Amino acid sequence: MSVGLIEPENLLPVKGIRLAAVAAGIKKNQNSDLVLIELASDSSCAAVFTKNIFCAAPVTLAKQHLEVATPRYLLINSGNANAGTGQQGMKDAVSSCELVAKQTDCKVNEVLPFSTGVIGENLPVDKISAAIPGAFKLLAEDNWISAGHGIMTTDTKLKGVSRQLELQGKTVTITGLSKGAGMIQPNMATMLSYIATDAAIEQSLLQECLQGAANLSFNSITVDSDTSTNDACVLMATGHSGNEKIVEKNDDYYKLYNALKDVCLYLAQAIIRDAEGATKFVTIEVASSESIEDARQVAYTVAHSPLVKTALFACDPNWGRILAAVGRAGVEFDIDAIKIYLNDVCIVSNGGRDSAYTEEQGQQVMNQQDILIRIELNTGSEQARIWTSDLSYDYVKINSEYRS
Amino acid sequence: MSVGLIEPENLLPVKGIRLAAVAAGIKKNQNSDLVLIELASDSSCAAVFTKNIFCAAPVTLAKQHLEVATPRYLLINSGNANAGTGQQGMKDAVSSCELVAKQTDCKVNEVLPFSTGVIGENLPVDKISAAIPGAFKLLAEDNWISAGHGIMTTDTKLKGVSRQLELQGKTVTITGLSKGAGMIQPNMATMLSYIATDAAIEQSLLQECLQGAANLSFNSITVDSDTSTNDACVLMATGHSGNEKIVEKNDDYYKLYNALKDVCLYLAQAIIRDAEGATKFVTIEVASSESIEDARQVAYTVAHSPLVKTALFACDPNWGRILAAVGRAGVEFDIDAIKIYLNDVCIVSNGGRDSAYTEEQGQQVMNQQDILIRIELNTGSEQARIWTSDLSYDYVKINSEYRS
Repeated sequence: MSVGLIEPENLLPVKGIRLAAVAAGIKKNQNSDLVLIELASDSSCAAVFTKNIFCAAPVTLAKQHLEVATPRYLLINSGNANAGTGQQGMKDAVSSCELVAKQTDCKVNEVLPFSTGVIGENLPVDKISAAIPGAFKLLAEDNWISAGHGIMTTDTKLKGVSRQLELQGKTVTITGLSKGAGMIQPNMATMLSYIATDAAIEQSLLQECLQGAANLSFNSITVDSDTSTNDACVLMATGHSGNEKIVEKNDDYYKLYNALKDVCLYLAQAIIRDAEGATKFVTIEVASSESIEDARQVAYTVAHSPLVKTALFACDPNWGRILAAVGRAGVEFDIDAIKIYLNDVCIVSNGGRDSAYTEEQGQQVMNQQDILIRIELNTGSEQARIWTSDLSYDYVKINSEYRS
Repeated sequence: MSVGLIEPENLLPVKGIRLAAVAAGIKKNQNSDLVLIELASDSSCAAVFTKNIFCAAPVTLAKQHLEVATPRYLLINSGNANAGTGQQGMKDAVSSCELVAKQTDCKVNEVLPFSTGVIGENLPVDKISAAIPGAFKLLAEDNWISAGHGIMTTDTKLKGVSRQLELQGKTVTITGLSKGAGMIQPNMATMLSYIATDAAIEQSLLQECLQGAANLSFNSITVDSDTSTNDACVLMATGHSGNEKIVEKNDDYYKLYNALKDVCLYLAQAIIRDAEGATKFVTIEVASSESIEDARQVAYTVAHSPLVKTALFACDPNWGRILAAVGRAGVEFDIDAIKIYLNDVCIVSNGGRDSAYTEEQGQQVMNQQDILIRIELNTGSEQARIWTSDLSYDYVKINSEYRS
């Protein structure tokens, strides 16, 4: 089940990027679970990772490798997170990279490892070892869809998108994949995303692009507030489109940045639309705030409120729960000055229910799948927007019945 | 349903305190919903209130009255929270106090109003007006049990406790009531608690006593992280026990303080044992922390994690979820140094699953109703303890089906 999410029928190849997905037997269901991505030499690569202190071994290793080398290969397995695995986990992550390096002429630190799935179990390196040669043979530019399937765990739908733009007469392609649905497998959500472009862009600008776009997309979604140990988002740029290399924040940079934001936003929202047990896709917008931080804090407090989330599941225009969540967010404001809207229906003004509000108006909004909760703090001119899902029986079912 | 909560058969009267409960017709089910508490003249009274900015009209008014006068009467209604009601809500709260004052010789600001129940609906002052004279007639010292029933909303069990102690040969009694079960009625949790003692103690010390005890009890519990607009806890001291008045932090002060902590802890834990949909009573203890704030932050992050809460519901010793929640709490520590226990079973050490841990051990703990999650951060010598419940189908049911 998902909330209005349509799988892509086709994803555009990105010049200089080849992909392959194979079934290594890590997942119990025989689905593909090992993805290899090859970057043309001279590509740039940017990445952002989970802030969870208990980050998984592959996250730690990928960060180390990125500091000293430019990646040539990404190796991603699903079905096992290689998290909470101590020293053995790090050894296994290193072994995986060595296995890739051995097949080609690259160095071990030119391989980035990623894992998603069960936490606390050792990575089956033997299975990965056996499957890698086959993956190399399958490498091709048009394997984005199969790679997308290979990184899925409890996702019900493939999440991918392509965009094209013109940079001074050259067509530039961006294609991205993401996975994540709340908690994946038995333990926790892992949000992974791989985005590639054939644009030519300097490394530091690429990283800045990704950080900015990720903040407005992947770092602005929440299913259950549980940051995974394995989250990672990688942006690769091969430079094969033939555009003049972007080395400063010129028009081309902003064109590329805007297209990338668009791709990231699509992929992030796709995760929410496929969130575990989701029946609603909810945008929370906090406007006229003194700071972006305040706006995000209020938005996340509303998004994480179990009372708001169960009301959304019940299609119940229970504005008192939204008001109470806003009030406990730890942000200062004048309760008589704030306004709260469901879509374009004002529900709260002058410290209580808006005088023109009727239950029927609220009900009409809540019956929809896509809902906007807009909060005007009237303390300044900043704003923030985040996306979330509701809290349903299925959420409890999915997350309580896994191991039973 | 509740987790091991036994209703008191009897609550001890407190000299100088009289109570009455009547059915004013505010609740639809004809149960008692209006409670009047009378304090002997010369009593002291301390109180703590919700920190929600959207606090209800009665909370605002009670705070104002406490600043200028010593209360003689508390008027508590259940079935309507008088929250989110704007200017009309404040007028209605004032009217309620006036109605009490009119029956006796006290001033309006010697009456404290409290409300719990539906948010956003105007208080039925006419019903309260009609019921007040009857309540005055019923005032008696041994009405604690009926008063306890009168403040309940979706609570499944009465929550009350009595303790006695000796202060220099005089017997001092403390009796307290509490209500709250997560979200009450359609909208949100309201935690209310009324505690009285016949001890003689100076006002400022009484307030200090209550603040200290409340921090370790009522401010250390969470069902769903949703702070109500109406929370209040009142501590009354009549001085009728005949003990020498406590005017400094002497032995008597600490004896009384410890007994009060005991009462508050019982009442706070009773709320968790009766939490909406609860099947588990969970103690989260964070030890060897650099600060109490760090310890509480880690404890609350674990307590609010929907993934941890659903695992508890499922009796699933899913230690990866606990580890991940600890890791995202925003507190610095060395992952190789921390230890996590389920009761006395070590589940995490050296950055991963403890080498001696077996799934059977974890399962044995999780099958119990009362569970201790103990986290040793090894960053200092402070600690904190909080209490929470699990996240069950019934929680979603109770909070999504109310208005359908």
